Amino acid sequence: MYDTHTAALVLAAGKGTRMHSPRPKVLQEILGEPMLHYVYQALTPLFGDHVRTVVGHGRDEVAQRFPAFADGFIVQADQLGTGHALMESFEELERMGCENVFVANGDTPLMGSAPLEGFLEATTRDMQADVAFMTITLKNPGSFGRVIRTKEGQVRAIVEAKDYDIAEHGPMTGEVNAGLYLLRLAAIKDLLGELTKENKSGEYYITDLVGLGVKRGRVVIGYNCGSDPNLMGVNSPKELVQAEFSLRKRIVSDWLDNGVIIHAPESAVIGPRVTLDPGAELHGPLELYGSTHVAQGATVQSNTRLEDSHVEAGALIRAFSHLEQARVGRDCIVGPYARLRPQAELLPGAKVGNFCEVKKATIGSGAKVNHLTYVGDADIGSGVNVGAGTITCNYDGTNKHRTVIKDNAFIGSNTALVAPVTVGEGSLVAAGSVITKNIPDGNLGVARGKQTNIARRHTRS
Amino acid sequence: MYDTHTAALVLAAGKGTRMHSPRPKVLQEILGEPMLHYVYQALTPLFGDHVRTVVGHGRDEVAQRFPAFADGFIVQADQLGTGHALMESFEELERMGCENVFVANGDTPLMGSAPLEGFLEATTRDMQADVAFMTITLKNPGSFGRVIRTKEGQVRAIVEAKDYDIAEHGPMTGEVNAGLYLLRLAAIKDLLGELTKENKSGEYYITDLVGLGVKRGRVVIGYNCGSDPNLMGVNSPKELVQAEFSLRKRIVSDWLDNGVIIHAPESAVIGPRVTLDPGAELHGPLELYGSTHVAQGATVQSNTRLEDSHVEAGALIRAFSHLEQARVGRDCIVGPYARLRPQAELLPGAKVGNFCEVKKATIGSGAKVNHLTYVGDADIGSGVNVGAGTITCNYDGTNKHRTVIKDNAFIGSNTALVAPVTVGEGSLVAAGSVITKNIPDGNLGVARGKQTNIARRHTRS
Amino acid sequence: MYDTHTAALVLAAGKGTRMHSPRPKVLQEILGEPMLHYVYQALTPLFGDHVRTVVGHGRDEVAQRFPAFADGFIVQADQLGTGHALMESFEELERMGCENVFVANGDTPLMGSAPLEGFLEATTRDMQADVAFMTITLKNPGSFGRVIRTKEGQVRAIVEAKDYDIAEHGPMTGEVNAGLYLLRLAAIKDLLGELTKENKSGEYYITDLVGLGVKRGRVVIGYNCGSDPNLMGVNSPKELVQAEFSLRKRIVSDWLDNGVIIHAPESAVIGPRVTLDPGAELHGPLELYGSTHVAQGATVQSNTRLEDSHVEAGALIRAFSHLEQARVGRDCIVGPYARLRPQAELLPGAKVGNFCEVKKATIGSGAKVNHLTYVGDADIGSGVNVGAGTITCNYDGTNKHRTVIKDNAFIGSNTALVAPVTVGEGSLVAAGSVITKNIPDGNLGVARGKQTNIARRHTRS
Repeated sequence: MYDTHTAALVLAAGKGTRMHSPRPKVLQEILGEPMLHYVYQALTPLFGDHVRTVVGHGRDEVAQRFPAFADGFIVQADQLGTGHALMESFEELERMGCENVFVANGDTPLMGSAPLEGFLEATTRDMQADVAFMTITLKNPGSFGRVIRTKEGQVRAIVEAKDYDIAEHGPMTGEVNAGLYLLRLAAIKDLLGELTKENKSGEYYITDLVGLGVKRGRVVIGYNCGSDPNLMGVNSPKELVQAEFSLRKRIVSDWLDNGVIIHAPESAVIGPRVTLDPGAELHGPLELYGSTHVAQGATVQSNTRLEDSHVEAGALIRAFSHLEQARVGRDCIVGPYARLRPQAELLPGAKVGNFCEVKKATIGSGAKVNHLTYVGDADIGSGVNVGAGTITCNYDGTNKHRTVIKDNAFIGSNTALVAPVTVGEGSLVAAGSVITKNIPDGNLGVARGKQTNIARRHTRS
Repeated sequence: MYDTHTAALVLAAGKGTRMHSPRPKVLQEILGEPMLHYVYQALTPLFGDHVRTVVGHGRDEVAQRFPAFADGFIVQADQLGTGHALMESFEELERMGCENVFVANGDTPLMGSAPLEGFLEATTRDMQADVAFMTITLKNPGSFGRVIRTKEGQVRAIVEAKDYDIAEHGPMTGEVNAGLYLLRLAAIKDLLGELTKENKSGEYYITDLVGLGVKRGRVVIGYNCGSDPNLMGVNSPKELVQAEFSLRKRIVSDWLDNGVIIHAPESAVIGPRVTLDPGAELHGPLELYGSTHVAQGATVQSNTRLEDSHVEAGALIRAFSHLEQARVGRDCIVGPYARLRPQAELLPGAKVGNFCEVKKATIGSGAKVNHLTYVGDADIGSGVNVGAGTITCNYDGTNKHRTVIKDNAFIGSNTALVAPVTVGEGSLVAAGSVITKNIPDGNLGVARGKQTNIARRHTRS
Repeated sequence: MYDTHTAALVLAAGKGTRMHSPRPKVLQEILGEPMLHYVYQALTPLFGDHVRTVVGHGRDEVAQRFPAFADGFIVQADQLGTGHALMESFEELERMGCENVFVANGDTPLMGSAPLEGFLEATTRDMQADVAFMTITLKNPGSFGRVIRTKEGQVRAIVEAKDYDIAEHGPMTGEVNAGLYLLRLAAIKDLLGELTKENKSGEYYITDLVGLGVKRGRVVIGYNCGSDPNLMGVNSPKELVQAEFSLRKRIVSDWLDNGVIIHAPESAVIGPRVTLDPGAELHGPLELYGSTHVAQGATVQSNTRLEDSHVEAGALIRAFSHLEQARVGRDCIVGPYARLRPQAELLPGAKVGNFCEVKKATIGSGAKVNHLTYVGDADIGSGVNVGAGTITCNYDGTNKHRTVIKDNAFIGSNTALVAPVTVGEGSLVAAGSVITKNIPDGNLGVARGKQTNIARRHTRS
């Protein structure tokens, strides 16, 4: 944990107009996680619970997505700029008893902890900065604010690209403001009062603290981090998917280095919270999201999507399978075309096959659910065979009821099991039956119409 | 609309031997549209209804695919070369009263309108050309016909690469004939008669008009268009997929620039007629074809294929879904594994889930069709719940019949609804029933066998 | 066939610790085939049945996968290095009566026959080598053993990178040992006895024969093959997928050159044994494995997986289909979401559609199995229509039974056919029936409950 003299303030109130999306900008997703997730991941090792977040647009959605951080939310009712967000937070930052605040944007998902740590150590410990900010040097600095320095390298100001005057500011360099600040609260308190919104956007800018600090003789530091593109914010769909692409490549490459076999790795999408054992085998195109885990010796074929699911050793997830909050035990075979929904749990050696859906159900050890079947709200014993086209009728329009199939029972094909209902151990259900009453152990249950054959006047041509 | 003094003639009679396909060459598809579609798209803004097409191989198929252009088809019964195609069209071109004809190939899908417009303006208005052709300069000109010019830059001839003689023609340049011509009808009428098929292919070539024009003192212009690779024709599978790849990248990049969020954009395939709102969100790999539209705030997950389908705001198309001529209303949830076929219409908030197929059917507002169900030729009211494994039996072997399920009815699982049949408002069908008769409003319909349990002599091991 | 004076010895005993997988290293797959497959493919044209394989880890699995080569397996019970593998094989090599042995690793899948042939001819015929080895020159030779030569180019030794001493060995070059050897048995017999395991790994190395050969005045040849990366072995997941990627690109590019239309070719995965006719049309992402064949004029859409399956001319495999050991006749339409399992055979013009599974069954000419159906162990005649949700109940828990549906029969939707059972020619099964008895030709079979409608006390809100 970093020293507790510094708090982190995440600016996450913006709408992200250029994303054109109803979703708040910081909830835009990269590899299945909101951008803000990555920011918190970078900050938590450094600041622990000293993280505060300025929220505005869609703040309820943000709170819902990050309940653990919601206590530290500061609401910026009117979006009057980054400087305003800092003003609105100042009381809380003082109340926390911190000396400094590190200000980050909620839309810099790739920044990571390491460069921040270097910046914080240098500027707080070594340089005793009042106002410090991270800078990067870009080949194509575009419209980013340029850092102006004296010949000795002291920061003089940050100037917008469009306001840059070579006569006044000297030859243009590619050094730009990354928008990440370390501010000593005592040193900026009076400066904050000097911020104005006399600019084209009509907003208060944190950036202006740099010029004000220089003017008032404060220790102002522009800390250059080379050309790390990961420090840049995401402001448009194109930047979002570029950041995502870059992170995706990095994650896949890291897993390959860690001994995971990933065929067609260029088409594998693996979220940042996924964990994979060395010797797990994956085939792109596939998507693994959330807290998914794949164990050594397990294989996940292509055209699969796993969210928050666990796949144990020796298990095989075949093509076109879709798992969500499911657990697949050792040596299970799932798919192709298996749909495991939340609370589907397959015990070792179970099989769930083509066009089968399992939800809130346990499939016993060695049991088979192989074709065109819906198993919901059910407990299926070990060694059970569920025939093709079986449906557990779990919903009566008001409540959900449970189906219990005991060990080694055999369910004939095209059967409806009307829950609540129990099929006894070793029992057999005749194909095509509609089972509405319990079947005791070792019984045969039949419930179907009697067949009549009638000669047709004309055979079909 | 361009001036009506010029007609366009599209050469689309070729078989495309190098494509090895039974399909006529100009119907080979790029992003789901025939190559000829792109040619017509480029020509229509310039020529309006003055577009004529020389067809031959597979002309019925071509006519069927492009009925709006079929009135302007000129049949070239024998394929005796481009010059022959022009001869066969001459009468019709004269009949149209045009002064000039622009000749294009049906296999140049990427050419676009802009370079043609520049060429036409320059050669007809400024240069008063009798015979003009577009040239491009290639680094690797391969076997394309080389343009020979005088020191002053006047075109002398087009020489095939294999016939090029440095002593005679001077140092070889990379300027080649792109195969796009502007011809003044009056000026070439007599030249056409001079074309011969005394060459290795035994065909009449338009190219020869260049040399003949020079010989006869006509105004012959080789109009250089730089190195635009989009003017080149597609002659092999490799060139087809290269053109497709290049267009695909361009389209995806444009949509990103327009504010569409496209995850894994390198694996997104989006046809040229698709329209997307800013703030729509897509996940590659996916394919959007035809007139598909995705509205703002709608999401289409990966592993999906949408053809000629509309997805309204807030709707979610989940993975492994396949939509064809379907309409998905606001806030609907479709999939995973949903198959919407032509005339499937989902009203706002409807859900169609795993392994469900919907065809010629309306799914009412808030209705749910969630598991292993076939709904065909049906009207499903609002608030209806269709249980797992339900089948509308719409076909009796001769005719299709309609199933009507009125508002708030509840269809128990594994039910067969034998059409024509109506389930009344608020009615309930017991699970596992075969419903052959109408159910009045507010009734319970049951149609299933009675259950018997019989003790089995030996329980299964 | 190459001269029979030389045998090939494949070293395939290693565990492949860096693969972290329970599978033996040489069974790690590239495009669906074990690495060893490619090695055998390269060696067989050169050595015919004179191929021997040293196996160890997982030797039973290797034998099971390559029964044709198992007779030539030599078991290396203890893995004491490559030199030890050669010692263990020496008796068998002498017994075969060969003069030379070519030693290859089982983990060099991309080497191909051609460079080997050049090496063998040069070293055995022209150079009369006693000990020869292939070398390649790498820009980044990393930790590979460096070849040390005299000024005249004679090999002096192979030195491990870490042991390289510029003072002693001269400036370091990028020439490294590729690990492929030609050894004259008579010349190395005594050298083998001089190998020691006095090294860090405690293993006997073939490499040491080079230095020993030089010392003893044998003809030692380092045969440089330029910079061919295909000669390098695969030692880690990353190297495996890199080799796979490289081979994948080469195969796809070759098929394009051969007239196969492959849309989105960068996402097509085509195994080395697949055969495609010119004019076949494929859409990536797709995977074709094993002995799959696609004929001219057949189309395979994206998101498909075909293993060991044949698709005849004019057939269409739609998206999300998965075929395994299936045969699809002319003009058939399969999918979307069709699952054809082993011994599924579709006669010309048959259709198998959405969410249908077919296994050990023939679907007659023009027959339709279009929706949510399971057909297993069945013979379906021509012109048959199998309604939605039909299930052949083929398994009674102990045995599988056959369903026969004769020509032009019509199976109503949601029907269970309890095998063994026959539906007669032109017969009709009423929707929702459970058919347990044969239906004679031209009959209507009905087997369902009688419907009752009961007024509900309260209609559902």
